[in-house]
Amino acid sequence: MLKTIEWTGEAVRVLDQTRLPGQIVYLELRDERQVWDAIPRLVVRGAPLIGVSAAYGVVLGVRAGRGVDAVCDYLATSRPTAVNLFWALDRMRRVAKAGGDADRLLAEAHAIRAEDEAMCLAIGQNGVTLFANSGDRPVRLLTHCNAGALATAGIGTALAPIYAGLQQGLKFEVFADETRPLHQGSRLTALELREAGVPVTVLCDNMAATVLAQRKVDAVIVGADRIAANGDTANKIGTMPLAIVSHHFGIPFYVAAPTSTIDPSLPDGSHIPIEQRDPAEITGTPPRATAPDGVKVFNPAFDVTPAALITAIITERAVHRPPYRFKKL
Amino acid sequence: MLKTIEWTGEAVRVLDQTRLPGQIVYLELRDERQVWDAIPRLVVRGAPLIGVSAAYGVVLGVRAGRGVDAVCDYLATSRPTAVNLFWALDRMRRVAKAGGDADRLLAEAHAIRAEDEAMCLAIGQNGVTLFANSGDRPVRLLTHCNAGALATAGIGTALAPIYAGLQQGLKFEVFADETRPLHQGSRLTALELREAGVPVTVLCDNMAATVLAQRKVDAVIVGADRIAANGDTANKIGTMPLAIVSHHFGIPFYVAAPTSTIDPSLPDGSHIPIEQRDPAEITGTPPRATAPDGVKVFNPAFDVTPAALITAIITERAVHRPPYRFKKL
Repeated sequence: MLKTIEWTGEAVRVLDQTRLPGQIVYLELRDERQVWDAIPRLVVRGAPLIGVSAAYGVVLGVRAGRGVDAVCDYLATSRPTAVNLFWALDRMRRVAKAGGDADRLLAEAHAIRAEDEAMCLAIGQNGVTLFANSGDRPVRLLTHCNAGALATAGIGTALAPIYAGLQQGLKFEVFADETRPLHQGSRLTALELREAGVPVTVLCDNMAATVLAQRKVDAVIVGADRIAANGDTANKIGTMPLAIVSHHFGIPFYVAAPTSTIDPSLPDGSHIPIEQRDPAEITGTPPRATAPDGVKVFNPAFDVTPAALITAIITERAVHRPPYRFKKL
Repeated sequence: MLKTIEWTGEAVRVLDQTRLPGQIVYLELRDERQVWDAIPRLVVRGAPLIGVSAAYGVVLGVRAGRGVDAVCDYLATSRPTAVNLFWALDRMRRVAKAGGDADRLLAEAHAIRAEDEAMCLAIGQNGVTLFANSGDRPVRLLTHCNAGALATAGIGTALAPIYAGLQQGLKFEVFADETRPLHQGSRLTALELREAGVPVTVLCDNMAATVLAQRKVDAVIVGADRIAANGDTANKIGTMPLAIVSHHFGIPFYVAAPTSTIDPSLPDGSHIPIEQRDPAEITGTPPRATAPDGVKVFNPAFDVTPAALITAIITERAVHRPPYRFKKL
């Protein structure tokens, strides 16, 4: 499995996910600006991995003499939707407030990373119970975007039950939505599943409904960027229509995420801020532009899936079933 | 409006739609092989325009001394889903069977083209009645793929009500799904609507559900490649999930097509053959591949929308409402 992030002693070394699947390139991020920059550029992406990266970014900023609060405020502006970012920064602030020095902050960042690995494993263990009675038949899943090992410091969230199941001798077949506009599904999910020996089929997002209509899969499983108290879930754009179509055809729709993705301070999904991104992500640029000049572009990075369409939410603690009522921890 | 097709006297001159929106290039197709080749390559595309192109292809083949039936059988293999292709070829066969020579076949091809223009106008007139009570407020529509002037010899099918409405002083705003994998929405629909002065916003297919959830449009309108007797409609891949999501949010979902798109010989959509296309359309090719080597690809060109999800089917004859019971003419 490709290592997504590692601490070198002076820098945080990250896999540049914008270069995948063609090239395996690691970047050393040496200060908090470089960490900030890597987040909206999607060098590092995936809600859990953004949290881990930001924690190391705080260490780099404090080592260079900046105040913890200023560094945290700065890193918090990198992306608005994934709550794990704010959750990780809050943990760093609390350590500093309790008198922690740079070494203590580094220990906290390491702890966030180690906990992420452990959470992924536990999500996998909990999630695989949903597919345990499949016998010798492969479990057939469809997923959107990448909520795999590449989105975390561990074995992923939505894909964790697959990796856990492989250990138990289960077989899997996966349809991976390409996930426009940035192709995290075809670039990243297809890559990591192929490396794990799981048969994977890539398709355009708008083809998933045909897969569901033809019952080519047993369930849909996706990650999450923020989950409100009532279970409404922000995830990569295109998740919500997939949930509606799954519901239409009676196919289970699962969300898998660590509890750090849950934001019980928001009563429902209408309060989740949604990042709008650069139009050029969709239209390209000349000479490869796929749209004429002078047209407007709508490019939200996430949508919100109503809790009513989610069959279960898998966390490291449990398989939660509706009605969801997440409380402050 | 860009001319899509024209007879030069010795050849059929077509706009190469694979070059849009960047370049306006016309190709002269001089024999039936060149016409055949232009169809799966999508140089000409759109169910009505494929029919018109094939009719001229028959003329070219017969002029070169080939038999009408052999030429028709050959051209019929170019694409399997759009029924207008077979309908146009059948008209040409009937003319030949009745003793028609090459001149009479050319006259029939011209007639098919002229009727297509007239049908587009009539679809526009019928369709615009659905939006007539919008007053000064712009009619806000979402469409998928391109069922506009570029898909026909006239003003289009799904976009015809817009062009008809503009003549009547109505205003429109359109969201155009980019339509993966070949971007007919962002490349073609956005281009022709911009030329017509209609404000158009491009978005990824998986973002349409957010537009519908936020009630940014009054209706969805699309074309069709084949409509079964019960109203089940094959259209560009991604149409069916759009219909499901429209139904979920209570937004009208309209199909617009000439009656030549209706195939009453098929009781329902399960009998419509669906073309599978080249995996490289989705994955690209190195160094711009968006998927790793060695993964499977699912690339159906069309899906089938169940009649129950279609609010109305607009033809040149009427606005048909469910239950649809199309009969042999």
